Amino acid sequence: MGKVVTLGEVLLRLSTSPGIRIPLAQSFHVQYGGAEANVAISLANYGHEVYLASKLPESNILSESVNRHLQSFGVSTRFIKEGSGRLGTYYLETGIGERGSNVIYDRAYSSFSMISKNEWEDEEMFKDADIFHVSGITPALSLYWRELTIELIKQARESGCKISFDINYRSKLWNQSEAGKTLRKILPFVDYCSAGKLDALYLLGISESSGKDEMSHYYRAIQREFSNIKVLYSTKREIISATANKLTGYLWNKGKLYSSTTHCMEPIVDRVGGGDAFSGGVLHGILEQMNPQKIIDFGTAASALKHTVEGDCNQFNAEEVIRFSSLGSGKITR
Amino acid sequence: MGKVVTLGEVLLRLSTSPGIRIPLAQSFHVQYGGAEANVAISLANYGHEVYLASKLPESNILSESVNRHLQSFGVSTRFIKEGSGRLGTYYLETGIGERGSNVIYDRAYSSFSMISKNEWEDEEMFKDADIFHVSGITPALSLYWRELTIELIKQARESGCKISFDINYRSKLWNQSEAGKTLRKILPFVDYCSAGKLDALYLLGISESSGKDEMSHYYRAIQREFSNIKVLYSTKREIISATANKLTGYLWNKGKLYSSTTHCMEPIVDRVGGGDAFSGGVLHGILEQMNPQKIIDFGTAASALKHTVEGDCNQFNAEEVIRFSSLGSGKITR
Amino acid sequence: MGKVVTLGEVLLRLSTSPGIRIPLAQSFHVQYGGAEANVAISLANYGHEVYLASKLPESNILSESVNRHLQSFGVSTRFIKEGSGRLGTYYLETGIGERGSNVIYDRAYSSFSMISKNEWEDEEMFKDADIFHVSGITPALSLYWRELTIELIKQARESGCKISFDINYRSKLWNQSEAGKTLRKILPFVDYCSAGKLDALYLLGISESSGKDEMSHYYRAIQREFSNIKVLYSTKREIISATANKLTGYLWNKGKLYSSTTHCMEPIVDRVGGGDAFSGGVLHGILEQMNPQKIIDFGTAASALKHTVEGDCNQFNAEEVIRFSSLGSGKITR
Amino acid sequence: MGKVVTLGEVLLRLSTSPGIRIPLAQSFHVQYGGAEANVAISLANYGHEVYLASKLPESNILSESVNRHLQSFGVSTRFIKEGSGRLGTYYLETGIGERGSNVIYDRAYSSFSMISKNEWEDEEMFKDADIFHVSGITPALSLYWRELTIELIKQARESGCKISFDINYRSKLWNQSEAGKTLRKILPFVDYCSAGKLDALYLLGISESSGKDEMSHYYRAIQREFSNIKVLYSTKREIISATANKLTGYLWNKGKLYSSTTHCMEPIVDRVGGGDAFSGGVLHGILEQMNPQKIIDFGTAASALKHTVEGDCNQFNAEEVIRFSSLGSGKITR
Amino acid sequence: MGKVVTLGEVLLRLSTSPGIRIPLAQSFHVQYGGAEANVAISLANYGHEVYLASKLPESNILSESVNRHLQSFGVSTRFIKEGSGRLGTYYLETGIGERGSNVIYDRAYSSFSMISKNEWEDEEMFKDADIFHVSGITPALSLYWRELTIELIKQARESGCKISFDINYRSKLWNQSEAGKTLRKILPFVDYCSAGKLDALYLLGISESSGKDEMSHYYRAIQREFSNIKVLYSTKREIISATANKLTGYLWNKGKLYSSTTHCMEPIVDRVGGGDAFSGGVLHGILEQMNPQKIIDFGTAASALKHTVEGDCNQFNAEEVIRFSSLGSGKITR
Amino acid sequence: MGKVVTLGEVLLRLSTSPGIRIPLAQSFHVQYGGAEANVAISLANYGHEVYLASKLPESNILSESVNRHLQSFGVSTRFIKEGSGRLGTYYLETGIGERGSNVIYDRAYSSFSMISKNEWEDEEMFKDADIFHVSGITPALSLYWRELTIELIKQARESGCKISFDINYRSKLWNQSEAGKTLRKILPFVDYCSAGKLDALYLLGISESSGKDEMSHYYRAIQREFSNIKVLYSTKREIISATANKLTGYLWNKGKLYSSTTHCMEPIVDRVGGGDAFSGGVLHGILEQMNPQKIIDFGTAASALKHTVEGDCNQFNAEEVIRFSSLGSGKITR
Repeated sequence: MGKVVTLGEVLLRLSTSPGIRIPLAQSFHVQYGGAEANVAISLANYGHEVYLASKLPESNILSESVNRHLQSFGVSTRFIKEGSGRLGTYYLETGIGERGSNVIYDRAYSSFSMISKNEWEDEEMFKDADIFHVSGITPALSLYWRELTIELIKQARESGCKISFDINYRSKLWNQSEAGKTLRKILPFVDYCSAGKLDALYLLGISESSGKDEMSHYYRAIQREFSNIKVLYSTKREIISATANKLTGYLWNKGKLYSSTTHCMEPIVDRVGGGDAFSGGVLHGILEQMNPQKIIDFGTAASALKHTVEGDCNQFNAEEVIRFSSLGSGKITR
Repeated sequence: MGKVVTLGEVLLRLSTSPGIRIPLAQSFHVQYGGAEANVAISLANYGHEVYLASKLPESNILSESVNRHLQSFGVSTRFIKEGSGRLGTYYLETGIGERGSNVIYDRAYSSFSMISKNEWEDEEMFKDADIFHVSGITPALSLYWRELTIELIKQARESGCKISFDINYRSKLWNQSEAGKTLRKILPFVDYCSAGKLDALYLLGISESSGKDEMSHYYRAIQREFSNIKVLYSTKREIISATANKLTGYLWNKGKLYSSTTHCMEPIVDRVGGGDAFSGGVLHGILEQMNPQKIIDFGTAASALKHTVEGDCNQFNAEEVIRFSSLGSGKITR
Repeated sequence: MGKVVTLGEVLLRLSTSPGIRIPLAQSFHVQYGGAEANVAISLANYGHEVYLASKLPESNILSESVNRHLQSFGVSTRFIKEGSGRLGTYYLETGIGERGSNVIYDRAYSSFSMISKNEWEDEEMFKDADIFHVSGITPALSLYWRELTIELIKQARESGCKISFDINYRSKLWNQSEAGKTLRKILPFVDYCSAGKLDALYLLGISESSGKDEMSHYYRAIQREFSNIKVLYSTKREIISATANKLTGYLWNKGKLYSSTTHCMEPIVDRVGGGDAFSGGVLHGILEQMNPQKIIDFGTAASALKHTVEGDCNQFNAEEVIRFSSLGSGKITR
Repeated sequence: MGKVVTLGEVLLRLSTSPGIRIPLAQSFHVQYGGAEANVAISLANYGHEVYLASKLPESNILSESVNRHLQSFGVSTRFIKEGSGRLGTYYLETGIGERGSNVIYDRAYSSFSMISKNEWEDEEMFKDADIFHVSGITPALSLYWRELTIELIKQARESGCKISFDINYRSKLWNQSEAGKTLRKILPFVDYCSAGKLDALYLLGISESSGKDEMSHYYRAIQREFSNIKVLYSTKREIISATANKLTGYLWNKGKLYSSTTHCMEPIVDRVGGGDAFSGGVLHGILEQMNPQKIIDFGTAASALKHTVEGDCNQFNAEEVIRFSSLGSGKITR
Repeated sequence: MGKVVTLGEVLLRLSTSPGIRIPLAQSFHVQYGGAEANVAISLANYGHEVYLASKLPESNILSESVNRHLQSFGVSTRFIKEGSGRLGTYYLETGIGERGSNVIYDRAYSSFSMISKNEWEDEEMFKDADIFHVSGITPALSLYWRELTIELIKQARESGCKISFDINYRSKLWNQSEAGKTLRKILPFVDYCSAGKLDALYLLGISESSGKDEMSHYYRAIQREFSNIKVLYSTKREIISATANKLTGYLWNKGKLYSSTTHCMEPIVDRVGGGDAFSGGVLHGILEQMNPQKIIDFGTAASALKHTVEGDCNQFNAEEVIRFSSLGSGKITR
Repeated sequence: MGKVVTLGEVLLRLSTSPGIRIPLAQSFHVQYGGAEANVAISLANYGHEVYLASKLPESNILSESVNRHLQSFGVSTRFIKEGSGRLGTYYLETGIGERGSNVIYDRAYSSFSMISKNEWEDEEMFKDADIFHVSGITPALSLYWRELTIELIKQARESGCKISFDINYRSKLWNQSEAGKTLRKILPFVDYCSAGKLDALYLLGISESSGKDEMSHYYRAIQREFSNIKVLYSTKREIISATANKLTGYLWNKGKLYSSTTHCMEPIVDRVGGGDAFSGGVLHGILEQMNPQKIIDFGTAASALKHTVEGDCNQFNAEEVIRFSSLGSGKITR
């Protein structure tokens, strides 16, 4: 089992039951999550020693809620700072059928986004760590975070840590040009990278593929530019409706493309965090030194499984993910 | 934006959660609705000035519930009378999958159905109104309502109001022969009419179409008899199960048939009021002077969207209906 | 209408809402059921006089819960004994989509399973009874129950009762060899038997069919060995996901195979007890002397209907099952 | 154990959670009850053989709900007729603290209230019955019911049955003068009568007591006029708030007054049916030939216990009522 | 009936069920409210024509939720602006018994608090208005709001409007010295003022009363300084626990003190908005020209009634408040 | 901050909402707890390093539920073993008002109770630990546990650990004579002991006190026999009803009795675990070297606070307990 450090913001999610619009909702479902926190929980479920570096409002019971959530899955909260600012929040009007979900962000002025110096400078956070994982949401939060993210990545590499990066582009936080510029500064340090077709086209300026094997085209082009990246991976999601999606995972390793079987996810209980569960699964495969086909099968199964439960995070251990892969869709176990 | 007056009964709906039969239900979901009230709410959501003419039991907190429901969407309750009688009620044992929903009516002796004189005679209800909308449920409620409906339609026309009529045949309220006779008295005054194939065949006695373009056949025949009707429209619903339906809208204008794209509605959250949302959408298109293709696209999208929320009424504004049409099924907005 | 006696254990089921895993569940749904109790309830719903012979913990409010459940459907609890031991329990982590349900049994040491003598020896339980129904779960519960089941079957036959037996093999209770041995002792007394392909292959040692009409092959072989069996029946379930299954019923009578239409069950609300609802429907058909095609249609419809409601037991009366068969999938009744 | 027949209407109750007003309620709690049905359930819980004579709408799933409710407690539904009309309904806006509960009746036109002939004339309903119980609500329902109640009481007496009558005056159903006249026709046939101070003063015209022992005064006066009445009983309820009441039971037998200890009921979960639980308890005491002090203690404890559970009916057996009396307020049993 | 304009911020309230702490809450109750909005709703319930002037985030479904909430009670949203910023939010960990409720504010950066110019300058908002009501929370929100509040008060007075002001001091928004300074600028324009003992002592620097009739002492002193104030009023709340409070209302008019009966509120469902319901009741009394004793009785009853329902606002009409006062605590109405 | 090891069984609790009896419950609330686990959680909340030694069924998702519960509060699960057997369960029919709660145990055959050797023999569990805490429930579980408890206590003492013991007598697990015998073997090793009047009288055979200061009498007598015990403590609970209790804490140290203020707990949300919260609070005071008066005030406040939340465990940190003590009953914090 490995040791992993992740870095990122945790948000409070307030969502409606499917079929209920926000103005008629008399209650909201409460969840806590964030891209990197979700990856941390996945990896803790698989038995790794995992830390989340983050920042929360001080003396605030919502911060305690976040800590309890992480601890319940065995994620260490030792590197979570507290200070001024609020807890980032978002509202999710849950979609169903033809009507997609609608996200209303209320995350400005959060404690994490307003960080203004490296609060982990003197920590021995990366000592003996195998992987440092961060997503593109973190540098998107502020100009200072664009610097600090790189600073922390360098700090991690000095400790001999591999760098895992999920591009995770969010158009509501920054634009393609800003994101592209920052990515070009980060990717030279990255070992494992979750990047998809749209990232290649719009953020990294790679030309569109006209051929059949498009994923190989994009991954080959990315790796040509950033030869330090050892593993590239992403999912392709076919959206039939908010309730029915098809999901296939792709992984590029040593010049070869691997793809998973396609999961027909219907009904989807909750798609938020599906990508994080995928990253968590792939990183587990890497840490466990699985072969590339097993990695992509495991990661995609983990993501499909995540879609069957409420909440942002994957709640299954490795044995359950494997049994799910082998059992066949929908079989009862009794 | 226009001014619209609708007329009709509001009922209390008591329904079970899907999967629960009435004898095992420890609670019922509570909703308020009625064909014309639902159209009123749709049009108020789209920004029009809307009034519902109706009647409720006096000094009864259920009447207050109805008023609050209508007001919350901006429908004026100024022309709602109060008097003796009860609030009409119905029970809905919600279907799922192969098992269709089951409606148990308990609407006899309601304040509205027992109206015995024109209580709106002296109101300036139709002044400056663009449309007066009523459905076939209202004349079905009593012999007197068959007269009064026509009287109010005439009163509206005298104010220069267009007449909108939704045939809305309910076999539990009257039979085909009674309905047909009344319809023949009403339709000569109607400008916009929601009528489908079954109405044409069984209420208006139009011969069955053997050709491909059957909707044109029926609409042409109706318009031949009632040349005053400018717009005819209806949906065709393909029922795969209580949970999965396909919905296509048709509109006949100036001798030409327009049809919408087909919406695959799965899962359906609540189909009650789907037809009213369709009428509301079409009337909005007419009031906004959209072209016929836009009208039928908007109306059908509004109806499909209504199927994704609990309750009888459409809860979306015009911008949301349009975004829904253009976004593609199930896309998340974040 | 007939008189039926069933024999078996009743369990408490504690289940999660779909989308919620057990560790995050703040509440469990509560249901009571058991293979034979479910058949009893079905038959009581259809108007027969039905008794369940069972045993429950004494002076325990959970036993009262079981009695109330049975009585509410009109099943007589007159032959339910009370004594030491616990109420058998199981946890159901409800599946959805690709993720199948997971059953965690906690049924050891139950009052029923620990029965150590024929507590119904002196009862006139079988007097005038038409059918005595038991399933393969009962002999699987203990070595003594293997004997007692046969003893009670013989006692029933002496009263002129027909024997109905549902093989209902559960690998967590005994292995194939043990089950096969016991079955060979029971089947010679059986009149109506629910047995499927897997039972034929693995419990009764019948050779695999290579032909098209495999069900005839298996039934013919079983009847060759146990010529006393008059009716054989089972369902074939095609599992697309935990939420979508296809179900077809088969019945073998006088050397001829009858099959039902295939029911597309989507979404499935609760599949537990689906087989019991099928047996209940078939036995009703037999008691009502329907022709074989009607029997298998009724039984399969009853089972499909059961999948649309929460809880182990079929809650529909005969008229509702028949209306469901004839109405067409998903039609609203209003 | 005895055999008891009760006669009365069963209503559907739709209520809000405390703290929620009807216009804001998105769901209603569902209960079934009626004064005589509640007494029937109490007596069935205590082990007696109990029948409810009533009438429900035919082919209506709400009627099935009522039957299941009664059967679950072991009350026989054999003498429940079905026919035209609706199921009487009422809404309960549940009070709390200073704000009392508010009842909105919607019971007109019910199947039971519209009975127009003795539908039990040819039944052997009273054969071997010990007690026939009816309350003053039944004759209040219609002019015909005033006759039929007396007819059925006479029919019962011919079978050797004792008559139990609970005055249960409801000002919304009839006025004091009408009630008084009918009571004077019924009371000459009554053996056991639940009547309180207000009944004595306003319905029976007994002069107000100026002395201390007012209950003796009223009971003595009633018995002076109706010497056939062997037992008179009632509770005195001190209302501190909707949530806190004090309850004391009184019983008059052979010229002597017995009173129970005073129960401090706080918080009250549901007071509807509290009087019926009291009557049920007293009748059980009479059937079991307890001494008068035990009867009034048991009846009052049963009523206090009823106030601690949701729903109209007492759900406790005799042993639980007795344990409750002896254990002391609020003791945990573990 | 009068016309009233109120001005203030509306917040989203997210609260737990009593007995559940925030970190274990899987859902939050959703309410919308604000001091002045609550007063507006009370007055609309009593039949007045009421407007709320406020500001909400633009193109945000939470703003639509606020509008629907206000409209459902008949409050006009015509003077609600939309613009940048967020919707102010707060979390309420609901107290019970000895444990008081805990409020966690998250209201910074709201659209209303960030207003930077008089957005109602050109509106005819105060035309024909009888009362303009605002509370001390509004000037506490920003330095600019201290100016703008006074500017709007002057604008209102120019239209001949009376000024109603509720001091409503919140220590988390500003300190006593800041509040005192602003109050001295506002009070010279005020006609009706809700002020209590603590306001007199700590904000207005009035000396402590040593005598019995302390309320007269404080009111006399306030009126000595601000002789323009015609009516002063407040409640005294005796806190036994979070669940049990005693409430007495006081009103000072023309040199005389009036006090209400004391309401024993137990259990309290929701105390948030209790003061606003009191102000709303008093203002109704003033508008209806009740005598002072009736005003203070009505206002205090309205406040006590508010404590019996969930949510920030009083949901009762004038007739219900009066019936509540006269009926006596906890009486059932049936 | 200290290091604490506790030892004990964790049970699954299934409970009804107040007002609902088990036979009518359609869902049960789910909680996990146990006397020593609850103490562990309290101490972890106060910032100590805490371990629970226990045993759970292997490969069982209910075991994972228990682990997540403990981890969420920061209790280490490192010394929790897994093996055969079930998870002990109990049902709680929640009392209210006069009706006390009713516990139905289903804890036989649990993994923990069936332990048959010292599974912690080779662990360095007690290294550097300050306190080892166990309650009388553990030795009550089996004859072997009577030995093993003492063996583990000795093992702890060898590591220099203080022994904390809560007598916690449960009559359903063993009788007074068995308990007394075992206690006399355990108490000679104990440093801090929770023991009350009934323990002194019935388990330790101390004569009844006739004087006023009875707690001093009992504690003096216990200490006379077991002079090794440094601190004795317990609460006195006055039970007005299941909903209202008064609670006073007593502590005996160096020959002197200290008592807390009396907490009026009304309404009680959940009294299960109230004693464990008290022990947890007292042990925190001891670890923090508070003076005896502060210890007993803190411990009793912690217990009172626990009664205001659902679930077995105290969920408050030390700062919250102290604020609760100082704030005064029911004050809102805003």
